[in-house]
Amino acid sequence: MAEEGTRVKPEALKDFVTKVFCKLDVPEEDARTTAEILVTSDLRGIPSHGVARLQRYVNGIENGVMMPVAKVKTVHETPLTAVLDGGDGLGQVIGHKAMTLAIEKAKSVGFGLVTVRSSNHFGIAGYYSMMALEHDLIGVSMTNAAPLVVPTFGKDMMLGTSPISVAAPASKERPFVFDAATSIVPRGKLEVYSRKGAAIPLGWAVDEAGKPSTETDRIIKNMLERIGGGLAPLGGEGELLGGHKGYGFSLVVDIFSAILSGGLWSHRTYPKKEGKPLPAKVAHFFGALSIDYFIPVDEFKSGMDDMIRALKDAAKAEGKDRLWIHGEKEFEAYDENLAIGVPLGEKVVTQLKEISEKYGVEYNL
Amino acid sequence: MAEEGTRVKPEALKDFVTKVFCKLDVPEEDARTTAEILVTSDLRGIPSHGVARLQRYVNGIENGVMMPVAKVKTVHETPLTAVLDGGDGLGQVIGHKAMTLAIEKAKSVGFGLVTVRSSNHFGIAGYYSMMALEHDLIGVSMTNAAPLVVPTFGKDMMLGTSPISVAAPASKERPFVFDAATSIVPRGKLEVYSRKGAAIPLGWAVDEAGKPSTETDRIIKNMLERIGGGLAPLGGEGELLGGHKGYGFSLVVDIFSAILSGGLWSHRTYPKKEGKPLPAKVAHFFGALSIDYFIPVDEFKSGMDDMIRALKDAAKAEGKDRLWIHGEKEFEAYDENLAIGVPLGEKVVTQLKEISEKYGVEYNL
Repeated sequence: MAEEGTRVKPEALKDFVTKVFCKLDVPEEDARTTAEILVTSDLRGIPSHGVARLQRYVNGIENGVMMPVAKVKTVHETPLTAVLDGGDGLGQVIGHKAMTLAIEKAKSVGFGLVTVRSSNHFGIAGYYSMMALEHDLIGVSMTNAAPLVVPTFGKDMMLGTSPISVAAPASKERPFVFDAATSIVPRGKLEVYSRKGAAIPLGWAVDEAGKPSTETDRIIKNMLERIGGGLAPLGGEGELLGGHKGYGFSLVVDIFSAILSGGLWSHRTYPKKEGKPLPAKVAHFFGALSIDYFIPVDEFKSGMDDMIRALKDAAKAEGKDRLWIHGEKEFEAYDENLAIGVPLGEKVVTQLKEISEKYGVEYNL
Repeated sequence: MAEEGTRVKPEALKDFVTKVFCKLDVPEEDARTTAEILVTSDLRGIPSHGVARLQRYVNGIENGVMMPVAKVKTVHETPLTAVLDGGDGLGQVIGHKAMTLAIEKAKSVGFGLVTVRSSNHFGIAGYYSMMALEHDLIGVSMTNAAPLVVPTFGKDMMLGTSPISVAAPASKERPFVFDAATSIVPRGKLEVYSRKGAAIPLGWAVDEAGKPSTETDRIIKNMLERIGGGLAPLGGEGELLGGHKGYGFSLVVDIFSAILSGGLWSHRTYPKKEGKPLPAKVAHFFGALSIDYFIPVDEFKSGMDDMIRALKDAAKAEGKDRLWIHGEKEFEAYDENLAIGVPLGEKVVTQLKEISEKYGVEYNL
């Protein structure tokens, strides 16, 4: 949840973000797509991937590591597949284009699988997998990411927090929308604890010896200075609680995104030259799958309903009054935020106002 | 690792298992396939899914819940996809057939995706994904399983330990073979601790209130009697360490295996009628993916080599001298066991001898 400062109208926020990107020479349609994906993240209750990131994208374009115009090239294409080179454009623009292509392919030949290299941070993975839902397709999206995660028995950051998202439609129930980083938590979660002056839970991260540590600020400092240590994969440090599985899921994302696009795996993303950042070269994977190539869509949706209903009705753990299905919390946040406004933290508001000032885009949210 | 009793020659063990299945009216080719998959599991150092399970399969056939002849029916087929009904045959026979079909499809049209309903426990998921490797394809396999895992904030067993396996070829390095249950550990791990009289690590399982517990025997009893509690998903109980992610991965397996085949999701598998077991109706998913529909296979393999090499060369955590790639431990176990014999625990040897006696199949291993 956002550290709440104020609430703003989503459409006004989208317009503001769109105008900022336009000022940075992003074509209007691309600016609008990016704004749409960022604000959707805020609406869905995931502010870490929302307009809080606008500053970073602005900086990226200013520093020349993100191209305002995404010159997306097709490296290879078949009716089923495509490999795209994103030309270091905005990840959202490239991701939207690639998932649209995957959906077109699925509608025409049953499946579409599109891998992407030379892109940038694309926001929430769930945005793209969910694009498949309105076509009654199953959607899959993955992306690799900056190396912040320490592999099992290692001590240096080699893996991305590389999320996997799968979206599948239901009928009476809301769709299943799984969207999970393959680490326990993203780096942002550590920063939240740091601001509170609190120790992080044991298991989230390891220190410079590769051992679990709760010392929030030491971990953050180690990560920033790349002294050693970093985030733990899902399952934690070592093998006792299955950390090798989270590590494996992270490699699966790198294989489908980076290796299968001829791009850079997480460890090699965000390269630098003489201390200066070069284009990040993030890689993505998108898939869309026609359900009726297997069974009738209605039968599939009934099956989803049955599974979701049974889980929601299942016995609750002591002290809990609800079982959640993946995506449910986000759908509820979306509805609420659409009605009463997108919550923006104070820090974000300050950033947006600075951007407003600098680029002469009126901030009247 | 096996609780070692003796070591036997793999070929002799395969012959023994084949003959036992033949005595139970399993056609010879199917008997051999099943034996091959079971013994491969033992060779790969995963005895829990090896011949230790022969007794259960024998019982299944004897009790009429597993059919000795797998009458596999095609429910629906396209050049890219198939939905098979396994007719309650042996899971290994059905799985082998389905993955073979997925591979044929991938070689002909780029991909093959096959979903299966009405099957049984199929052994190690990794066997099937690895079948793709010899064709330079990426292999994927998943299966749902008996409900032993408690969803986040729940207290009853609703989810399978449902594993996901992905195999991808490399060139100089050994292939990547990920094969992971979506729970932290399988039930068998609890039984190992029970035999040692040891408490299980906190996190693996929850008690009848849905709270983490280390009381091995209480957990096992609760699970057997379905009093409440069971295994925790990858990430553990609650959301703090990401248990909702393991829960989500488990649902992903059910969606691709069961819902997409019109079969039963984990919660509904292993049904009973008046206390007596009915066919288990396990569901699987198999996928094979042509790399050269994206990039040249050689380029892919070089990318895999680079990633694997960098991980193996990465800095080690204090007290660790090696980083493992998924599948590596199993390849090394395979080589060792092939050379010096398959390790069989005492209990397994006793079981095999009883089976030998009962079915008149000579046990001279």
